[in-house]
Amino acid sequence: MAKRMAIIVHSGTLDRLYPVFMLATAAGAMDVEVHLFFTFWGLEALKKGGLESARLPGVMRLGTGMMKARIKEAKVLSLPELLRMSKEMGNVNVYACSTTMELMKVKEEELIPEVDDIVGAAVFLDIALDADIQLFI
Amino acid sequence: MAKRMAIIVHSGTLDRLYPVFMLATAAGAMDVEVHLFFTFWGLEALKKGGLESARLPGVMRLGTGMMKARIKEAKVLSLPELLRMSKEMGNVNVYACSTTMELMKVKEEELIPEVDDIVGAAVFLDIALDADIQLFI
Amino acid sequence: MAKRMAIIVHSGTLDRLYPVFMLATAAGAMDVEVHLFFTFWGLEALKKGGLESARLPGVMRLGTGMMKARIKEAKVLSLPELLRMSKEMGNVNVYACSTTMELMKVKEEELIPEVDDIVGAAVFLDIALDADIQLFI
Repeated sequence: MAKRMAIIVHSGTLDRLYPVFMLATAAGAMDVEVHLFFTFWGLEALKKGGLESARLPGVMRLGTGMMKARIKEAKVLSLPELLRMSKEMGNVNVYACSTTMELMKVKEEELIPEVDDIVGAAVFLDIALDADIQLFI
Repeated sequence: MAKRMAIIVHSGTLDRLYPVFMLATAAGAMDVEVHLFFTFWGLEALKKGGLESARLPGVMRLGTGMMKARIKEAKVLSLPELLRMSKEMGNVNVYACSTTMELMKVKEEELIPEVDDIVGAAVFLDIALDADIQLFI
Repeated sequence: MAKRMAIIVHSGTLDRLYPVFMLATAAGAMDVEVHLFFTFWGLEALKKGGLESARLPGVMRLGTGMMKARIKEAKVLSLPELLRMSKEMGNVNVYACSTTMELMKVKEEELIPEVDDIVGAAVFLDIALDADIQLFI
């Protein structure tokens, strides 16, 4: 049976979305089944244009442009490119948290098409209980 | 044997205490044994009145009232209610970190009665090593 | 076979580096094999003088001196001392993230000698998949 990684994506900042997608693409390439559950601030990343507008946290937000330039210089893909690559792998699943959608008043049509499903914490927990790696980012 | 979830609760902000208790109550309802270890900023949540006064982080703290209003509107329970529900389930265990208590000069009588035990990192690690899910929040 | 703990160290602040090394030394003493992967802000901690200059996050950085005084008063070791103790145990492995080194333009000679290896996410993921505990700090 394939190994499985489950990540709760609670953060919406550039510095934390990067590890999410770097781990997702690395794991996907290793034939690990990946499940990403975007909740709270993380949900913002699943809204149209959300990944593109993610910034560094707090006062560091002013350094976002410079960080993106360095990322490009190091030939690391952008967040939207990493998401696209994840989805092309076929084993990376993207979930939006249903409770957060209610809380943040986000409608289904505001989400990017890469979202596979809108689920609650219990459904994701069930997936995570059988995973080999669980992370809260 | 029951599945087990172990969470190290390092954060004391509203946005991170919510996932802790949402996961704890969801897991508890699924008959998963839950162990919550409150350390560093997280210990504040176990002091009398601590959960009630948790706020959003950094400059977002000013938005705490609005967030709480939205949480209520979405019919999500308050943090103290979620803690009470967790404890009523009987399989959710709450620990205060002994080192943090020394560091933050918190006395046992300042803690809420829902705390099951005051333990060190080694004791919690022992519980976590046999857990199916471990998270650092 | 020995139990294994894998931690992705994404944070570079004092309050989060402490749990990393408290868990590493506690686990190491319990004969658990420990693997620490320093990435993004966490890499700063592996630069010469990095652990010594770690501060509390955001506006709390001004309270760093007071926190360090309390840590000393509670007879908790300093971060450099905890790292040294980890390495003396022989079962704590320290990795620097290769992508972060490129991104942050950090050269190998800038790193402290306690770093065992410079590896990518895929290598670390492979280690983490077989671990009993995985955390993202």
